[in-house]
Amino acid sequence: MKDIVDLTIIGGGPTGLFGAFYAGMRGMSCRIVDSLPELGGQLTALYPEKYIFDVGGFPKVLAKDLARELVDQGLQFGADVVLDEEVRGLREEDGIFVLEGASSEYRTRTVLIAGGKGAFEPMVLRCPGYEELLGHGVEYSVRDPEVYRGKRVVLVGGGDSALDWALILKDIVERLVVVHRRAVFRAHETSVARLEAAAKSGELELRIFWEVKEIRGNGRVEGCTIFDNRSDAEESFAVDAVLTFLGFKPDLGPIKSWGLEVDKKRIVVGQLMETSWPGIYAAGDLVSYPGKLDLIATGFAEAAIAVNNAIRRVDPNARVNPGHSTNLKIFKDK
Amino acid sequence: MKDIVDLTIIGGGPTGLFGAFYAGMRGMSCRIVDSLPELGGQLTALYPEKYIFDVGGFPKVLAKDLARELVDQGLQFGADVVLDEEVRGLREEDGIFVLEGASSEYRTRTVLIAGGKGAFEPMVLRCPGYEELLGHGVEYSVRDPEVYRGKRVVLVGGGDSALDWALILKDIVERLVVVHRRAVFRAHETSVARLEAAAKSGELELRIFWEVKEIRGNGRVEGCTIFDNRSDAEESFAVDAVLTFLGFKPDLGPIKSWGLEVDKKRIVVGQLMETSWPGIYAAGDLVSYPGKLDLIATGFAEAAIAVNNAIRRVDPNARVNPGHSTNLKIFKDK
Repeated sequence: MKDIVDLTIIGGGPTGLFGAFYAGMRGMSCRIVDSLPELGGQLTALYPEKYIFDVGGFPKVLAKDLARELVDQGLQFGADVVLDEEVRGLREEDGIFVLEGASSEYRTRTVLIAGGKGAFEPMVLRCPGYEELLGHGVEYSVRDPEVYRGKRVVLVGGGDSALDWALILKDIVERLVVVHRRAVFRAHETSVARLEAAAKSGELELRIFWEVKEIRGNGRVEGCTIFDNRSDAEESFAVDAVLTFLGFKPDLGPIKSWGLEVDKKRIVVGQLMETSWPGIYAAGDLVSYPGKLDLIATGFAEAAIAVNNAIRRVDPNARVNPGHSTNLKIFKDK
Repeated sequence: MKDIVDLTIIGGGPTGLFGAFYAGMRGMSCRIVDSLPELGGQLTALYPEKYIFDVGGFPKVLAKDLARELVDQGLQFGADVVLDEEVRGLREEDGIFVLEGASSEYRTRTVLIAGGKGAFEPMVLRCPGYEELLGHGVEYSVRDPEVYRGKRVVLVGGGDSALDWALILKDIVERLVVVHRRAVFRAHETSVARLEAAAKSGELELRIFWEVKEIRGNGRVEGCTIFDNRSDAEESFAVDAVLTFLGFKPDLGPIKSWGLEVDKKRIVVGQLMETSWPGIYAAGDLVSYPGKLDLIATGFAEAAIAVNNAIRRVDPNARVNPGHSTNLKIFKDK
């Protein structure tokens, strides 16, 4: 069993990393535990090559570059990092929390759950060929868009991810067919306008009220059939890939069994980001409170709020009394 | 009188600029009105040369550089900017708000008050010489630390600004005396540890329980007397500057008379950042809600939340229905 730390953060995505930074700046010892093999969360695992426009101070930044900066920022105070480790259980013993990982147990004075979309499952398409060809041309995330250079691609969905990728891929692929089952998009107004402009100028084909009926292939995607859900008209053509961006279905996984108050499969928090279990905080895409927005910007703020309240549990005088840490390596090279 | 816009933001600091970005991304027309001659708020006006460490994604960034990025990000959708204009009054006419500026009136469908610390007054020192020499060696902000290279400086205060500047100036000045009237600092634990280490190694002189009794000079600061508030022991010496970082006293200025609900001189907002006047939102350092932290990170999040709620007033279908704007210039060079 490892040393007791002041704060253990479950999840090493943007929210968790900013929480680790903040804990370090406030002199708290900190450990990050993530089930993924790499820090950065969605930024690294789902869309490393995607540009992000809505993080404050970055007019435009590649997800992988933002992840690298966040790792630098978050780990500068020497947070312990445990990767490839799923936290399954949580118990409290004499005021100390014990996280039950798959390979070890981790003791900590406070917990910040920042599992983000990692606690979510991608929505799937229900049609013949989807499951068999998943990972072989059927994909629900894009790591490197260059893989699709010169290829024929069907892209399914009408949310921000779908539109963002359509707008990136249109300049790379040979043919891009965007299929969306209704006329309404759940995406930023500006992205919708750009998509429609790209369709008008012939950079992509936009099929509104169309859906995928079947995906065909032999070990690799080779073709598909789509249909108009108003007229049942069908069309079949050869494709190299079917990319589905249908959003994520909340799935808190093992967290469900910890006894925390949950609403619509998200963890309920108060304005101080505390869960129903004192000492356990949560921040980022898996929390629920009135007006909650799933943005990196709000995740950062929530992490800062959570840490600034968690510290009072570790040291009740923390706000006015310089902490229990003499971490002199801080900002040393700055 | 200028055109009606969807959103007018009072204050062009980090919070206001991020709000302008978000409004643009959501297709809202936007105007920023600021009483300062330059965008960037405190970043530009109070400490352009100071490093900031606690903005998500920036392990370290100069305030002026962050301000430049925020201006690029915030103005990319063509927000109208009105500088050197103090908003004095606010009235509502047929569902349209009219901001009464010193030089013009501005009509708008919604308002975001993001005045930040610009709506705050610096706390002053009460001792002979302070007022006469203010601006002549007595200062409550530092624009360019190089001004103090090789100089003898007394720095007063025990908060984050005081310590941040002490840690920067110690490497530049000839002599640095840090005077603080009590033993407790209101600053990040790591900054306190660094200050104490610098005092121990002789890089600066730290006088705990000391205060400034008098500042002397003839058109410029020439000397001062400090005293120990426990023993009344006094010490006089020659100095070139007395820098006071005593915090800010909230002062909403003309906003006080707008009839908004106020608590401890801050504007009360709900979780959607709406004030007591429907259609008027507020974000950043001048708002009050349970657990409020005065950070750039929380200002960003609050601005995003405010804008995402303000848009529903302008277009009730905004969340699912692409907006009233066909702003195709968006991200055009990206």
